[in-house]
Amino acid sequence: MKKYLKVDPWLIVEDQFKAENHKSSESIFSIGNGQVGQRANFEEDYSGATLQGTYVAGVYYPDKTKVGWWKNGYPEYFAKVLNAPNFTGIRIFVGNESLDLAACKVLSFRRVLNMKEGTLSREFTAEMPSGKQVSVSVVRFLSMAEPETGAIKYCITPLNADTEIRFVPYIDGNVVNEDANWDEIFWEQIAHEINGNEGYVVSRTKKTEFEVAMGMKVAATIDGIALDVAPDTNSKTGYVESSFTVKVPEGSTLEIIKYISVLSSLNHSKDKILSNSRFVLKKAVDTGFDQMLEAHKAKWAKIWEHSDIIVEGDNEAQQGIRFNIFHLNQTYTGEDERLNIGPKGFTGEKYGGASYWDTEAYCLPFFLATAPPQVSKNLLLYRYKHLDKAIENAEKLGFTNGAALYPMVTMNGEECHNEWEITFEEIHRNGAIAFAIYNYIRHTGDSAYLAGYGLEVLMAISRFWSQRITFSDEKKKYVMLGVTGPNEYENNVNNNWYTNTIANWTMGYTLESIEVVKKTNPAAYQALVNKRRFNEQEETARWKDIIANMHFPMLDDKIFLQQDGYMDKEQITVDGLNPKQRPINQKWSWDRILRSCFIKQADVLQGVYLFEDRYDLETIRRNFDFYEPRTVHESSLSPCVHVVLAAKIGRMDKAYELYLRTSRLDIDDYNHEAHEGLHITSMAGTYMAIVEGFGGKRVNNGKLVLNPQLPENWKTFAFKILFRGSQLKIEATKSKVSIQNESDTDAPVILFGKEYLVTKSMKLVVENN
Amino acid sequence: MKKYLKVDPWLIVEDQFKAENHKSSESIFSIGNGQVGQRANFEEDYSGATLQGTYVAGVYYPDKTKVGWWKNGYPEYFAKVLNAPNFTGIRIFVGNESLDLAACKVLSFRRVLNMKEGTLSREFTAEMPSGKQVSVSVVRFLSMAEPETGAIKYCITPLNADTEIRFVPYIDGNVVNEDANWDEIFWEQIAHEINGNEGYVVSRTKKTEFEVAMGMKVAATIDGIALDVAPDTNSKTGYVESSFTVKVPEGSTLEIIKYISVLSSLNHSKDKILSNSRFVLKKAVDTGFDQMLEAHKAKWAKIWEHSDIIVEGDNEAQQGIRFNIFHLNQTYTGEDERLNIGPKGFTGEKYGGASYWDTEAYCLPFFLATAPPQVSKNLLLYRYKHLDKAIENAEKLGFTNGAALYPMVTMNGEECHNEWEITFEEIHRNGAIAFAIYNYIRHTGDSAYLAGYGLEVLMAISRFWSQRITFSDEKKKYVMLGVTGPNEYENNVNNNWYTNTIANWTMGYTLESIEVVKKTNPAAYQALVNKRRFNEQEETARWKDIIANMHFPMLDDKIFLQQDGYMDKEQITVDGLNPKQRPINQKWSWDRILRSCFIKQADVLQGVYLFEDRYDLETIRRNFDFYEPRTVHESSLSPCVHVVLAAKIGRMDKAYELYLRTSRLDIDDYNHEAHEGLHITSMAGTYMAIVEGFGGKRVNNGKLVLNPQLPENWKTFAFKILFRGSQLKIEATKSKVSIQNESDTDAPVILFGKEYLVTKSMKLVVENN
Repeated sequence: MKKYLKVDPWLIVEDQFKAENHKSSESIFSIGNGQVGQRANFEEDYSGATLQGTYVAGVYYPDKTKVGWWKNGYPEYFAKVLNAPNFTGIRIFVGNESLDLAACKVLSFRRVLNMKEGTLSREFTAEMPSGKQVSVSVVRFLSMAEPETGAIKYCITPLNADTEIRFVPYIDGNVVNEDANWDEIFWEQIAHEINGNEGYVVSRTKKTEFEVAMGMKVAATIDGIALDVAPDTNSKTGYVESSFTVKVPEGSTLEIIKYISVLSSLNHSKDKILSNSRFVLKKAVDTGFDQMLEAHKAKWAKIWEHSDIIVEGDNEAQQGIRFNIFHLNQTYTGEDERLNIGPKGFTGEKYGGASYWDTEAYCLPFFLATAPPQVSKNLLLYRYKHLDKAIENAEKLGFTNGAALYPMVTMNGEECHNEWEITFEEIHRNGAIAFAIYNYIRHTGDSAYLAGYGLEVLMAISRFWSQRITFSDEKKKYVMLGVTGPNEYENNVNNNWYTNTIANWTMGYTLESIEVVKKTNPAAYQALVNKRRFNEQEETARWKDIIANMHFPMLDDKIFLQQDGYMDKEQITVDGLNPKQRPINQKWSWDRILRSCFIKQADVLQGVYLFEDRYDLETIRRNFDFYEPRTVHESSLSPCVHVVLAAKIGRMDKAYELYLRTSRLDIDDYNHEAHEGLHITSMAGTYMAIVEGFGGKRVNNGKLVLNPQLPENWKTFAFKILFRGSQLKIEATKSKVSIQNESDTDAPVILFGKEYLVTKSMKLVVENN
Repeated sequence: MKKYLKVDPWLIVEDQFKAENHKSSESIFSIGNGQVGQRANFEEDYSGATLQGTYVAGVYYPDKTKVGWWKNGYPEYFAKVLNAPNFTGIRIFVGNESLDLAACKVLSFRRVLNMKEGTLSREFTAEMPSGKQVSVSVVRFLSMAEPETGAIKYCITPLNADTEIRFVPYIDGNVVNEDANWDEIFWEQIAHEINGNEGYVVSRTKKTEFEVAMGMKVAATIDGIALDVAPDTNSKTGYVESSFTVKVPEGSTLEIIKYISVLSSLNHSKDKILSNSRFVLKKAVDTGFDQMLEAHKAKWAKIWEHSDIIVEGDNEAQQGIRFNIFHLNQTYTGEDERLNIGPKGFTGEKYGGASYWDTEAYCLPFFLATAPPQVSKNLLLYRYKHLDKAIENAEKLGFTNGAALYPMVTMNGEECHNEWEITFEEIHRNGAIAFAIYNYIRHTGDSAYLAGYGLEVLMAISRFWSQRITFSDEKKKYVMLGVTGPNEYENNVNNNWYTNTIANWTMGYTLESIEVVKKTNPAAYQALVNKRRFNEQEETARWKDIIANMHFPMLDDKIFLQQDGYMDKEQITVDGLNPKQRPINQKWSWDRILRSCFIKQADVLQGVYLFEDRYDLETIRRNFDFYEPRTVHESSLSPCVHVVLAAKIGRMDKAYELYLRTSRLDIDDYNHEAHEGLHITSMAGTYMAIVEGFGGKRVNNGKLVLNPQLPENWKTFAFKILFRGSQLKIEATKSKVSIQNESDTDAPVILFGKEYLVTKSMKLVVENN
């Protein structure tokens, strides 16, 4: 744990420059707008440790697989979102000295991430080796209002002498990924041009041939008077710069504004990308920095209007949850169904920026509750559009008849991951994708999604399950052999209860959905039957047979057993583990982890969470009491599910303890890994912990269910839910709960078990009992 | 399958040059002498496809591990026997034209491996692009008599014109491994010198700093008259050559003899390696080619005297078995306990030349029966000397108290392999190392080995098992979780019957051995107790408890179950597999293989084979009948065990069918992989198949057991056994078996269940019933 940042409800503040914190801060202070994102790299040169990172959504490279021992079925490559050309750079020379915080004395320093307004700013005073002092203040943002633009305002004031200052704004396409498997250069440079204060670099990814055009245009003033200096220009392959040299009197301020455009071939034809860049950049310059910033702030205000959570009485929790909500909204804005949410978002290279089951299992509930339905629908359509690739993926593994296995890790629908125990066996991900369809319809009421898209995916996934499940003559039951469950500390096990459960549920939900579509849209159903050669009678008969005769391992009549043979392990609980042995994934060899009973992340409890309706409180309690003490939570995705269940069974202390692990995971750098990037997808789990855990939010038969409870030290907490056209603001204190309907749509709500219709503009207040 | 070689009892003959066979032939025609070995690369330049390979025993490089996803406990490197400096090269120019069989017309070609004499020879006639024809004949060998030397006689005759011939013998240290993980150069060059017709290159491996000195000295004659030409010399880092230009009249023969020395720092101090090379090379030159060859042949005659197997009535089988015996003897001669047997010997790069459990499980029985006991003892001492490394290896995985886990793959005792399911879980290898001690003592009678070395190893292995085995509260039995058995088509299973069996046996044999050593050498026992801090009472009590309460999965009262849950799989037999789906390891994804019931290689049957004494015929038969139909034999180590058991239960047709798969595996290139190198360790399995399978050889209570049976088409087969000081020649026909004692030591033999004392020089003849 590293606690070097100030606690503040809306700001992240670093008020001292320590080089050893810089890479973590580069992650934590990252900014983005869903289309482009970047680490908080300094504008000026920095010779200390840094991870340079600028990422353009959807632009990836297939990095050739690196593996020790090849297995049939492994993918040829790992698709990675790339470190893209750097457009933030402004090199500064004070006299002849390069301004470099690693090489000069930093007299004061303050870096601020303003989460309310979406800006990254920095103020510092530095003394050069020569003794010259300057003060600098910088503000930058990537526009939420015009996502292909951004701007930097860089102000520098000589403090103790008239000083010649040279500033060199540049764009540099000659960048690398630190995680490149084979030290390859992923970009080739297509074009560059520099014309005084305006320059462009167009770069193309090798193999995938995405093009990205970065543009810059620079304006500068001294004490508000426009600079009248013709810059020198300089360029080489993939690189352009303008170089300005000016005399700045002591105490005067040189203000540099660098306007930025970022266009990608996802949204522009390649032959127009450069001319469109000129157009986009010109519009930004014409709008001007202040107006651009206003529009950006207004957009953020709107986002917060939907998604903010207010916690009173616990500033750390307040800052933590806002930080999570802020980064989720920076990463995914939901307009483009080709995009998705990588585990590190735009904050680092790890996990390659690709999509995991995290999206469906953790992120979707956040976007369902806080964003218009189209946002969540786009997340679903992403998978819908990958259906044929998922079928191909299953074919590679020997499945037939249109069975689909969605990839563990993907950018374009093809599998990228290459550990057999995960790639081939962690197939519960298929279930999460099916469940997301159900969850989306449950929340939004958009059941037409089934006929248009959902049923096609469900059928293909059910086909997969029905082939993957085999009949055991020994057990006289259907079994699922050789899987890895959500608990990745078990590999190649038989009958993982969670996977069996979600597989069976998928087939059941597919059967229900067939009936729905047959009734509501028979033409669509018939078209689908034809398109996918669906043999309804035969296929559904098998699904029904499996549902009726599936093996589910049980410890006793209430406790579900994680997998066959789990009780052969030595049964130890986490509190008996020597703290020096933790985290076990850093201290133990893999076989020892596999043999132990310790659980990386919620597995049976993940199933209990998803299908809570099926179980009485006693069942939930007994499973929680069995598995929570065995769970080491070494996945950031784990604690949130336990929070929800702990709150459900009235263990608020436990819930709050686990909640703390997740909400400030990155701000306080619990695991010493923030420098690699942030845990973006698990941030949605934090939201889930508050809203579903403390808020008790569920959806049941088209009604919003709420059961707010407060942790001991909280005075109030408030959140909003977008639900079927209504927008509800829920505020809970220990003594009462109010629900304000801020929309024109009535909302059916069940609060503390009692049903209300919260009509438009109504405020319902219920006293706690 | 590729059948392009002639069948001959003592020769391997290729009588046509086809470039597409050349890489396979380079493997098949490999020669070696236990200290150095090489692929049958051409002496002259060859621009076609080739795998250059020269290997010096014990000289390796730690190639940095390549792995997709790191796991704790993985080794940092993979130790590889390296492609060493090339000393065979003789570049030939006919006029200005380079002699290169890929670039000229090959009018005739014959390559012969003489297995009786240990020589590789080649004769060909080639027409150069200019029309000039030459005939060439080459003989080369690596001396078995003086293993640091070798020689090449290269004769060339112009056929249709007086011709200027330039010949350039060279040594080239600038070589690479094709399998280098990171395209590294593994050698650095220390010294080179060239002095007329004599030259040396000294090379050092990076990191491990082994030094190897290659020397050459060249003599030449034309029609028997010594050449009086001063050569040009040429050298650069790691490279020396002598270049001779001579006029050779049409029909005259230029004979070039290249004497070779190969010295390594395993046997010479680095400061003397070059001067010692001069000495060794001079001695070879003084001896002369013919005398060297005679001494070499004499040594081979002695080897064959012990180890030959004669088969009459089946020339393919005859050639096949001799090929296997020949290569085993080329690979390991048993004088140096620092050396071992890599799966590909000196014939290719695959598997890195390191030691696997193959040595103990398959090769040891061959060397026990065909070589003096010291040879086998050296194989055991190899592991004895690695004991502390094996203890370190276990410590890395969390084991304590001197528990030893021998590595899966090793050169110097450290683990090299990096697939968790093998490195960490295929721990049955530890049992093979324990069993080898028992097997050695059983065969040789050298029970003093226990006190000196064996017990120390056994204790450390038993300590490992006793920690690796845990108690299941559910089963109320001891269990072993998370292992991979010999059948690598199952990973991370619980209670692999074979592993449980050999673990239990090890602890039992250790307990017995403790009693033996306590009685025969109490001082040695006490010293060992002190050295290894052995708490006899406590530790043996636990072993006894485990032995008495171990869980062994069973299908019924006779059939042992490969692992817990095996019967949950769909039970299909191999004959129901579409031949197009085979080999499944090339056609199926890994998860599909894991989920299937198909067995890669003998697993339960491996245990039944090792502990045959414990089981009645009915048990062996029922296990064979259950497992053989499920076994795809996709390891070359698999069929031999099935042959032995099939013969035991009287299934001679099945035994012969399986035998055919193993004996000509490389000659007929069944799996299209001979080009990568030969299956050296599985060759010992072929020997096992004949001698233990058809010969029925066992050892029982200090007596040699024999039960010869002949496959249908065999007239006679004969083999020799070195047994406790005696040498017995066994000849079997369908009607009778004779045992000739060729030694001065009496031998107790049980033939067809009847006991005889075959006294010195006696010939016992028994009619078959």
